[in-house]
Amino acid sequence: MSSAADIVERLKAGERAAVARLISWAENGDPRFGGALGALFERVGRGRRTGITGPPGAGKSTLTNEFTGLSRAAGRTVGILAVDPSSPFSGGALLGDRIRMEERTSDSGVFIRSMASRGSHGGLARAAIDACDVMDAFGFEELLVETVGVGQAEFDVMEAVDTVVVVLCPGAGDGIQAMKAGLLEVADVLVVNKADVAGAERLLTDLEDAVSLRRRAEGAWEPPVVACAAGRGEGVTGVWEAVERHRAWLAVDGHLEARRARLRLAQVRGAVAEGLDGRLWRSGGLDERARALLAAGETPYDVAAELLSAVSAGSVEPEEVSGS
Amino acid sequence: MSSAADIVERLKAGERAAVARLISWAENGDPRFGGALGALFERVGRGRRTGITGPPGAGKSTLTNEFTGLSRAAGRTVGILAVDPSSPFSGGALLGDRIRMEERTSDSGVFIRSMASRGSHGGLARAAIDACDVMDAFGFEELLVETVGVGQAEFDVMEAVDTVVVVLCPGAGDGIQAMKAGLLEVADVLVVNKADVAGAERLLTDLEDAVSLRRRAEGAWEPPVVACAAGRGEGVTGVWEAVERHRAWLAVDGHLEARRARLRLAQVRGAVAEGLDGRLWRSGGLDERARALLAAGETPYDVAAELLSAVSAGSVEPEEVSGS
Repeated sequence: MSSAADIVERLKAGERAAVARLISWAENGDPRFGGALGALFERVGRGRRTGITGPPGAGKSTLTNEFTGLSRAAGRTVGILAVDPSSPFSGGALLGDRIRMEERTSDSGVFIRSMASRGSHGGLARAAIDACDVMDAFGFEELLVETVGVGQAEFDVMEAVDTVVVVLCPGAGDGIQAMKAGLLEVADVLVVNKADVAGAERLLTDLEDAVSLRRRAEGAWEPPVVACAAGRGEGVTGVWEAVERHRAWLAVDGHLEARRARLRLAQVRGAVAEGLDGRLWRSGGLDERARALLAAGETPYDVAAELLSAVSAGSVEPEEVSGS
Repeated sequence: MSSAADIVERLKAGERAAVARLISWAENGDPRFGGALGALFERVGRGRRTGITGPPGAGKSTLTNEFTGLSRAAGRTVGILAVDPSSPFSGGALLGDRIRMEERTSDSGVFIRSMASRGSHGGLARAAIDACDVMDAFGFEELLVETVGVGQAEFDVMEAVDTVVVVLCPGAGDGIQAMKAGLLEVADVLVVNKADVAGAERLLTDLEDAVSLRRRAEGAWEPPVVACAAGRGEGVTGVWEAVERHRAWLAVDGHLEARRARLRLAQVRGAVAEGLDGRLWRSGGLDERARALLAAGETPYDVAAELLSAVSAGSVEPEEVSGS
């Protein structure tokens, strides 16, 4: 068993294996993670966090690879978190994506890590935030989080980033459906990939119309719609420039601070929910209690109410805040 | 505002609108739901609960439709819960599925309800169990729950059923990937749909090999692998017979009781988690507290630990169990 202090020292000394280890702790909900992050927290915050999401086959990994190339060409290091969906059905495609990324693995300025969503039960967004924090603390400058937007848990991973790039392509995703599902609300940059394929023009127009029709507050960010053909390397610079424009927007008027505050709150809520789950169910005997009540013929919601009444929130005094 | 008692009476009087209303309450986490379910709980338990899951395009809705036809021909009423994935990308396909189901909507012996997973944040499985309970209490005899197995939250919906049918087809889902992702652990019946398409034979053999190689306890259920071409109506009876065989297995040695106990526990855990979430975050001030601590420079896990320490689990005495 390595101690948190050991791993923290190794990470500070530039050992990539320490990054991998800490991300595993985050993924597994290891109790040592909190202490390690605390010891590294002053190093966290400089990395720029960009999410890439979209339907299977839209070209997310290709775009991630291109973003990596552009960042490396600009002399910046890159940490990549690829969140595999829990879906058992898309494993094949992802494997192919990973193989395409292999050209990057010999580059010491690039770190690539996969994270499975299977069995995560709600802790996935928290773990993704943690993983970004670790890569950030190590010193990676561009943090890219790629996830297939196929399920609620996987979609929530976008809470981990500052800039969300939604990648669509003709055929694989219908623009109007994307809008109805609220994608417009999370997209900071909308990309029409495979712009050389039939239907791309229409998708672009649909997205532009949807963006322009959407009411937004004064000064709010309006997501640009950018076309590219990432597989041919065409238009990718334009997409990256759109990401950079969003970052420039974030940098003023406290926008980045607001995003990061939201991210931190999501991280805390995740850690509290998992902590409660462990305390109440795994070690607190609520499981046995629930079984006994159910076996005695109580209805599920009566059992839930009874268990809830056994859990009381203590007093929470704002003046306890340290440093305020 | 309708009272729970009103809706319960209307449901008991055979009003289908009351079924829809109660499912909406379940979906929205309405506090009135628990009381309504309690008043109906003695009517819950007779319906047979079958889940149909698989990748997009595998033919889940077609199979659900065929199951419905077979049940209706046998004089049994059918309640269908279609859990749409939160994914914004598969909305189009699902819309098509729904349209194919329209032939059923004029049949008073069939009830069809969609449930969105978007924004459910972990409450989806609990809501699906609730919805089955409501349809069950109304008197629907065959309860079919269809969900795209594309994300963790959506996949967890299978906790709501007694028999899980996993539908694969050549091309859309690779058998080995399905096995690696643990699908074999949840499947009670494995279906190779589109058996007339190239690659079906290979998929069938792969699945059979995987099933036979898997170690299982003495007396445990071994999932049959059944081929069909649901779009042509070929082999569907064989699939339904496999479902019936699993039900016969469930009926002995307390297997069904064990499944239902697991289901009830999942329902209680869901209700407790959501109850805690509401109490602590929405109305308990933990949100403001967390913001204040974060703003004061505390690290996320320190904040989480502090909030957790403010929540104490009261004593849980087994002897309080009523009726024991």
